[in-house]
Amino acid sequence: MNRILVIGAAGMVGRKLLQRLAQDGSLGGSQITHATLHDIVAPRPPRNAAFQVRSVASDLSLAGEADKLVAGRPSVIFHLAAIVSGEAEADFEKGYRVNLDGTRQLFEAIRKVGAGYKPRVVFTSSIAVFGAPFPGAIDDEFLSAPLTSYGTQKAMAELLLSDYTRRGFLDGIGIRLPTVCVRPGKPNRAASGFFSGIIREPLNGQEAVLPVSEDVRHWHASPRAAVGFLLHAAALAGEGERIGPRRNLTMPGLSVTVAEQIAALRRVAGDAPARLIRREPDPAIMRIVKGWPQNFDARRARELGFQADASFEEIIRIYMEEELPA
Amino acid sequence: MNRILVIGAAGMVGRKLLQRLAQDGSLGGSQITHATLHDIVAPRPPRNAAFQVRSVASDLSLAGEADKLVAGRPSVIFHLAAIVSGEAEADFEKGYRVNLDGTRQLFEAIRKVGAGYKPRVVFTSSIAVFGAPFPGAIDDEFLSAPLTSYGTQKAMAELLLSDYTRRGFLDGIGIRLPTVCVRPGKPNRAASGFFSGIIREPLNGQEAVLPVSEDVRHWHASPRAAVGFLLHAAALAGEGERIGPRRNLTMPGLSVTVAEQIAALRRVAGDAPARLIRREPDPAIMRIVKGWPQNFDARRARELGFQADASFEEIIRIYMEEELPA
Repeated sequence: MNRILVIGAAGMVGRKLLQRLAQDGSLGGSQITHATLHDIVAPRPPRNAAFQVRSVASDLSLAGEADKLVAGRPSVIFHLAAIVSGEAEADFEKGYRVNLDGTRQLFEAIRKVGAGYKPRVVFTSSIAVFGAPFPGAIDDEFLSAPLTSYGTQKAMAELLLSDYTRRGFLDGIGIRLPTVCVRPGKPNRAASGFFSGIIREPLNGQEAVLPVSEDVRHWHASPRAAVGFLLHAAALAGEGERIGPRRNLTMPGLSVTVAEQIAALRRVAGDAPARLIRREPDPAIMRIVKGWPQNFDARRARELGFQADASFEEIIRIYMEEELPA
Repeated sequence: MNRILVIGAAGMVGRKLLQRLAQDGSLGGSQITHATLHDIVAPRPPRNAAFQVRSVASDLSLAGEADKLVAGRPSVIFHLAAIVSGEAEADFEKGYRVNLDGTRQLFEAIRKVGAGYKPRVVFTSSIAVFGAPFPGAIDDEFLSAPLTSYGTQKAMAELLLSDYTRRGFLDGIGIRLPTVCVRPGKPNRAASGFFSGIIREPLNGQEAVLPVSEDVRHWHASPRAAVGFLLHAAALAGEGERIGPRRNLTMPGLSVTVAEQIAALRRVAGDAPARLIRREPDPAIMRIVKGWPQNFDARRARELGFQADASFEEIIRIYMEEELPA
C-alpha cells in the first residue's frame, strides 16, 4: 500500500510522472492508494487514476507548509519542485528561498515526524551541479563546482539529502537529470531551449532558430526516460547497502551533437522539417552553452539499473508519439 | 589601511592568528588599523597590538548579529567559527544552525551592505568535506561526499562562498585545513586527538595512548602553517582571475603515518618521550579513522603559493618553540 506525495506536480515532468502512475496504478509492485499533488498552483489530477487524489497549492518555503504535506506520512515522496535556472539567476533571494530553504523545510518536516518514519525521497537534481572546465566524460567522482545559483542550490540540497539519509531521517535518492528533450509546448527563453526547439518546431511545421554551431555536444534524456528514472529511484527501496552513502546519482543519457540531432531528425521525419532550422549564431548563448557539461560516464546509475534512451531517433519518436496528433 | 574582522577569534587557530597579526601589524602589505574579534565568548585581545581592538561576544546564527559585525565594513573577514565535528554529530540542529545558518547569515549581511562593498572573506573549511572511499591522493577535482554532518555543513558553506563570490557580493577564499598538529593544551576526546597527543603528552613527560596501528596515515599541518594559510589567503587579493570560480582550496600538508610521527619524535627529542606512548588499540576509533582522508595532491593551492610544513620534525619543533617552557 503506497501513499505518495509529488511536490512540483504541475511541472512538465510532474505531469508526465502522474500520467504514468495513474496508468500503472502501482509503484514498486505495490498498489497506490492515495496521491497528494503539490505545487505553487493546484496541480490538475491525472485522468483515470484508480487512487484517491488530493491537490494542494502552497508555498513550500513558508514555515509549516511542508509539515502539512508530510502529516499523512506518504511512503514515497517525489520532490521535483524548483525555480528554474534562469529565474534563480535573475532573482537571487527567490532561488535560495525555494530551491534551498524549501527543500530543507521538507527534509526537516520529515525528520520531525519521527517515530521511525523514513520515507523514500526521490529528489530531482540536475547536471547544473557541475561547472566547466570538464574532463572528456564526467564520472561519478567529479566535483560539484556549479557556475549558477541554481546549480549551487541543487548541489547544497544534494548534500542535505545524503546527510539526512546517513542520519536515518529519510531514505533519499537524488537523480541528476540530463537536459530533458524534446520538451513539449511553446518555445521558451531558456538558453537551452534550442535543443528541443530545433526538433519540436520543425515537426510542427514551424521555423526554429539554432543559435550555436552544429558541433555543440550536450547530454539528453526524453521525458519518458526521466519518468523512468523517477520510478526506478522510487523502487530501489531496500538496496541501501548497494547504493551506499553517496545518494546522488548522475542519470544516464545520450551525448549527441547538434549535427547528430539534426541527422536523427532527417532519419525519422525526412528532409523537410530539417529545412525549417535557421542558423542564427548568438554569441551570448554560445558563451553560456560553452560552460555546460557535454558528456558523462554515469556508471553508478547504470549499474543500479537506470536506463537511458536507446538513440536520439527514439527521443524524437517519443515526442511524436506523446505530443503530435496522430 | 585594513580593518579586519575575525569570527571565531577565541579558538586555537584564531588566537594564533591574532598573535601573528599583532606581531606583524600589517596584512598584505597594508597596516592594520582596527580589529574586531568575535566569538560566542568575548575573545581575549592579543598582546602588544598596535591597532585598535574590539571584542564582541554573540551568537552569529541569531538574526541581526552578523549585520552588526559587518556594519564597520571590514576589508578582510576571517571566518573561523564552527561547531566541531563531534558536537555537530551529537547535536544535529546546533551544527546546522551555527555552521550553515551562521555562515549564511554572515554572507547575507555582507551582501546587504551593498554599495560596492566586497570584502575578502577567508573561510576555514576542512578535509572533512571528503568521505571514503578515496583514491591514493585526493586531487582538486575529487567530489565532496562527506560522511559527517560537520563535513556536510562545511561543503554547503563552500558552495555558498563560491556562489556569493561569482555573483560579486564578496571575494571569498575557502581553505580546507589539514588536521592541525600538534594542538596545544589538554587532551580532548576528539577521535583525532591522538595524532597530537602522542607528540604533546610525551614532550610534557606524560603518557599518551595510541588507539590505532602505526601504519595509519593522515594529513597534517602545524598551527603555524595554518596561520600562514590564512594570511596568504587574505593577501591573494586581486588575483581573482588566477583563482577562477572554484574558490575552495585544499591546503597543502604532510601525509605521514603514525610510525613516521614517532620516528620524527625520536629524532627531535630522543628515545625517552617515545617510550611514553602506550599502544591500546580501540576498535571504535580505528573504524572512524578508516573513513578519513590520508593523502592529497593539493596542486592548486601549491601553485597559488600556499606552503606546507617542511617535515614532521618541523611540526614537532614548532610545538616545542611555541608551547614548551624554554
